Amino acid sequence: MTAAEDASAPYEAPAGLAGVSVARTKVSDVLGRKGFYHYRGYNAVDIARRGRVEDAWHLLLHGELPTPRQRAEFAAATAAWRALPAGVGDLLPAIARLSPPGSLASLRTAVSAAAQAIGCRPWTDQTDAETTEQAARLSAMMPVLAAQLFRLASGQEPVQPRPDLGYSDNYLYMITGRIPDDRARYALERYLMLTIDHGFNNSTFTARVIASSGADLGAITAGALGALSGPFHGGAPARVFDMLDAIGTRENAEPWLRHEIESGRVLMGFGHRIYKTIDPRSQLLHEVARELHSERVELAEVVEKTAVELLAELKPGRDLYANVEFYAGVVLEAAGLPREMFTSTFACSRIIGWMANVLEQIADNRIYRPLAHYDGPEAPRELPGFWQPATP
Amino acid sequence: MTAAEDASAPYEAPAGLAGVSVARTKVSDVLGRKGFYHYRGYNAVDIARRGRVEDAWHLLLHGELPTPRQRAEFAAATAAWRALPAGVGDLLPAIARLSPPGSLASLRTAVSAAAQAIGCRPWTDQTDAETTEQAARLSAMMPVLAAQLFRLASGQEPVQPRPDLGYSDNYLYMITGRIPDDRARYALERYLMLTIDHGFNNSTFTARVIASSGADLGAITAGALGALSGPFHGGAPARVFDMLDAIGTRENAEPWLRHEIESGRVLMGFGHRIYKTIDPRSQLLHEVARELHSERVELAEVVEKTAVELLAELKPGRDLYANVEFYAGVVLEAAGLPREMFTSTFACSRIIGWMANVLEQIADNRIYRPLAHYDGPEAPRELPGFWQPATP
Repeated sequence: MTAAEDASAPYEAPAGLAGVSVARTKVSDVLGRKGFYHYRGYNAVDIARRGRVEDAWHLLLHGELPTPRQRAEFAAATAAWRALPAGVGDLLPAIARLSPPGSLASLRTAVSAAAQAIGCRPWTDQTDAETTEQAARLSAMMPVLAAQLFRLASGQEPVQPRPDLGYSDNYLYMITGRIPDDRARYALERYLMLTIDHGFNNSTFTARVIASSGADLGAITAGALGALSGPFHGGAPARVFDMLDAIGTRENAEPWLRHEIESGRVLMGFGHRIYKTIDPRSQLLHEVARELHSERVELAEVVEKTAVELLAELKPGRDLYANVEFYAGVVLEAAGLPREMFTSTFACSRIIGWMANVLEQIADNRIYRPLAHYDGPEAPRELPGFWQPATP
Repeated sequence: MTAAEDASAPYEAPAGLAGVSVARTKVSDVLGRKGFYHYRGYNAVDIARRGRVEDAWHLLLHGELPTPRQRAEFAAATAAWRALPAGVGDLLPAIARLSPPGSLASLRTAVSAAAQAIGCRPWTDQTDAETTEQAARLSAMMPVLAAQLFRLASGQEPVQPRPDLGYSDNYLYMITGRIPDDRARYALERYLMLTIDHGFNNSTFTARVIASSGADLGAITAGALGALSGPFHGGAPARVFDMLDAIGTRENAEPWLRHEIESGRVLMGFGHRIYKTIDPRSQLLHEVARELHSERVELAEVVEKTAVELLAELKPGRDLYANVEFYAGVVLEAAGLPREMFTSTFACSRIIGWMANVLEQIADNRIYRPLAHYDGPEAPRELPGFWQPATP
């Protein structure tokens, strides 16, 4: 017997739900063949070139771009929400001791506790206004948790957030202890806006699946953060960097890359489930890296060009191009961030997208509860004869 | 433009992936029309009648039922893994202060920290043996975390686990501080074995989605636990109990239930995505409740019978029957558990199913990355004219 015989012939989806549309959405879209993606209809790369984090955040959370006045009010409100609630700051040193600096596992534990501290309950038991405010508060706290955990885990005193600083300035300040220069802010701000949302990627889908059970925003955020920590999703930018280190020189790019590909290893920073052309995020990050005269950009360019050529030669038909993670590390380094913080920084922007998706999910919810096709031993199998019925 | 125009006509799945088979599995199956489910081919209700938790756990984790010798070895190994690692026990009091007794949010934060403490890393960076051992350790620690958090949050001293006690005895001992009687163990053991796994339910699917990104077992467990905490999934047994309290007497059942259904409210403990007949779990739990002469069983029976009749009358064609949660609370109360601990107890059994599913997922992995159908404002929309390009 199989589920297929019992139910009315379920649709058998491809592995990983590739090519399956699981919902309707007004949050964002990725047109993989056109190399274009948008937030609520606005070209995300344009927003990243011309906007500020709070603009994109307001657009995602509230559905519309802010007017100049709304922008100022939203920036002030979200800056005030940076303050960690009582009981969370005290937990951070003990959490930070459990994992190395920049650990997404520490951040997951901390954000889970922070959600408890601000009183997140199942959204079914809350008003929409409560849930929306918690979504903004968790998004505002994420950079603070990430920065303080980093400093604690590296043996430094945590730096308290400053509500008078903009989003990116405050983040870099909390990590380095110094107000950043314009270049650093410029680099970080582009990266953050580019990575806020991107369709039903693995962590966003996770957020929606958990939200659909009626769970609280802490459950949703911890789960999505967990998904983001996986090397096949958000856990790769630092690995791209490690690759650039390992290659070392321009001359070494071709033989090193050829050896990796021929050995069957996956090149970090190349290929994407949806993009079958150049990833527009990678394009802008590349531009930013050049504008900032990053030391590493020249090596990265050689590696990118060589890898794309080699992949076309050795893996024909796979359409493998540099993805967002390829130049992300180069830009984040130019912003003054240590590489241990690359994935945590990604979490700070992507939580904004998670929350927008969650608010949409709960507005018209049906629990995600798919089927699977059982193909194990035929049921029912006989239990061993020595097993006796239990009695009270 | 929509994703549909860009990609090659994706399959548009029903909301919640209802009726969509997302994977092949050898772990378990639910035949919803037959009212039958199994673990790796063995009738799960038979296992629950005749086995012990360690039998089902070994079957799920290692793929086969244990021989008597394997059962003893596995019981000893998993009992030893109950000990909390350094750094976690110290965190529990502070976590317990953040939420009320029995909170799944506290348990989520605690298991996230516990996974850090035992060194869970992305499974992509571990051997299969390491990942399997961590899966067993997290499953063994879950009841300890749940029990200690409960006692701390209720102002009691935590009780350390005893490796010389069986799974269920130890759990009840850690919560109540007393070795339970045979009836209590009998009741709890039936419940636990019945609820270990159940196809691609919401939390199990969450576990697989997160696992598919390459994330560590802590990320996976925290996410799945978050999903379980939702009222549409595992967060309902206590609510069924609240309903029985609200009804109070047999005479009040009909008018109370009719009023609820006619007011458009969802009755907790009835209906299931997959079962369109009597839930076999509910059936055995009902039997167990009767065997134990639970005080509450008579009221529950009247409520069940009345609700099923009223649902058939007022919601014809929906096939709404009592689900696993309906008699779960009655049985768990007979086991001596406070109602705040019902969902945490569910988590203790279900983690065994999550881990089996995760080990299967990572053995043949493809990242879950579905599509969505964008139906918001047409892209690209014009950005406001006052937005100027940023410069470094």
